[in-house]
Amino acid sequence: MSHLKKYCFDGSRKLKLDRMPTNSKKDDVKKKDIIRKTEENQREIFALQDKLYAEGKEGLLIVLQARDAAGKDSTIRHVMAGVNPQGVQVYSYKQPSKEELAHDYLWRCSNNLPRRGMMAIFNRSYYEDVLVVRVHELYKTYKMSDRCLDGDTFIKKRYRQIRHFEEYLYDNSYRIVKIFLNVSADKQKERFLERLDLPEKNWKFSESDIPERALWDEYDRAYEDAVNETATPESPWYVIPADQKWYSRYLVSEAILDALKRIDPQYPKLSEAEAEKIPGFRKKLMGEQAED
Amino acid sequence: MSHLKKYCFDGSRKLKLDRMPTNSKKDDVKKKDIIRKTEENQREIFALQDKLYAEGKEGLLIVLQARDAAGKDSTIRHVMAGVNPQGVQVYSYKQPSKEELAHDYLWRCSNNLPRRGMMAIFNRSYYEDVLVVRVHELYKTYKMSDRCLDGDTFIKKRYRQIRHFEEYLYDNSYRIVKIFLNVSADKQKERFLERLDLPEKNWKFSESDIPERALWDEYDRAYEDAVNETATPESPWYVIPADQKWYSRYLVSEAILDALKRIDPQYPKLSEAEAEKIPGFRKKLMGEQAED
Repeated sequence: MSHLKKYCFDGSRKLKLDRMPTNSKKDDVKKKDIIRKTEENQREIFALQDKLYAEGKEGLLIVLQARDAAGKDSTIRHVMAGVNPQGVQVYSYKQPSKEELAHDYLWRCSNNLPRRGMMAIFNRSYYEDVLVVRVHELYKTYKMSDRCLDGDTFIKKRYRQIRHFEEYLYDNSYRIVKIFLNVSADKQKERFLERLDLPEKNWKFSESDIPERALWDEYDRAYEDAVNETATPESPWYVIPADQKWYSRYLVSEAILDALKRIDPQYPKLSEAEAEKIPGFRKKLMGEQAED
Repeated sequence: MSHLKKYCFDGSRKLKLDRMPTNSKKDDVKKKDIIRKTEENQREIFALQDKLYAEGKEGLLIVLQARDAAGKDSTIRHVMAGVNPQGVQVYSYKQPSKEELAHDYLWRCSNNLPRRGMMAIFNRSYYEDVLVVRVHELYKTYKMSDRCLDGDTFIKKRYRQIRHFEEYLYDNSYRIVKIFLNVSADKQKERFLERLDLPEKNWKFSESDIPERALWDEYDRAYEDAVNETATPESPWYVIPADQKWYSRYLVSEAILDALKRIDPQYPKLSEAEAEKIPGFRKKLMGEQAED
């Protein structure tokens, strides 16, 4: 857990992105060991998720945010491999539809909140509404009452609304883990070039990737503020170095495992009255076998 | 608007239910005049709703709460008669399903939030989660983490959560009007007896109506606290006398009309560029006619 702590923001200190590593260099780790530990973590996640589902008392929401080519999709695919898909739902939030824009911005996400006992992964989330919406001042195009569209307070109010929303979820037996996959500009460029060069990766490249990349610093400010304004002990942010996939996957698995351990799910125990019925049930089933 | 004010709670004064009238006696009104005014209000609501829909900038949520036989269903039917059903959605919230109970309590309601430009009527709402849930301490049966189930704070936290939720909606271009149809114990008894006597009304009676009625004072306290804890200028409560349907319908129409006037919706105006195209469109359409 020691490596994870370095990347955790729970409101007790401020995030400055230029001080955050995007690779494992300073952590003195060996790739081979990390891959082995990731596999161990996956097995532990698998076991705890089974208990989470059986108990049905808490829900776990994993919010995944990142720039393009930081590895969101492959992280989900890799870290969650082996987990029973019946207990996990993944939702991807792309550019909002007209119908979604006509609603309050939390609507499309809150509709997909899982029932307790489930894990849900949001591949992007309502945080887009304080990231891309802020950087491009998209709210200026919104159809809303004038009282809602004050440019000086629009984003600030959303931070508060998100804090309230996440506090509400925590108090209603959910836990939220928020992950920012922190990729460097150089590594993004390298991965973009790969997408342009390899035909089977072409579909991942979008024309808008280039102008978005030019707004790197603006996004840095937006991510920093989003983290600093919404990080709490109950729903912490993890700002995870994302230049090496084997390392980011390990840290993501650590963050999810940490949340599951805090939940500490248990298989439901039968009441004494129920337990007393078990020998009877067994007898009946065995009798059935004898009749075959 | 003068009669309405008396029944409005916006946080500036406390509700004491035993001081609130359940009929029109003290208001010095004539039934005939009131019915005529209600019809005028309906026409005005109709006109403003058309603009609300056309403009699509604000949404209006009408929350209707009451004891059984206070007239919720007939109020909706009567007051909204004539309004274009394309712009109005009604959702009734009965006892929550297993699936609903496995989610956060706002989930089933927030899923049904309308798009801006629409009116939605919630026939009962998330307020049930601080009314029946409080009176019967239903949270004791909930499958949630122990940290969420402290009996001393459970309902209090919900008041705060509801305040946050409604503040969020207001800041996201919605208005909420909350109506409590305040029926007297005597009038409820009379209406229950009618439900038992008239075969075509039998289906409206439920066995649980009698024990619920015995908890009259507990519900009084729960309603008072719910109103006092969540009434704000932006999402006020109206505690409306409900012993005479002609009077409660009038006051409900006044409350809805007041909210629509505050929204002050306008038909969208074309831009100059768009307006300049109109003569051309007209010419084309007229030409079409000549060819017939």
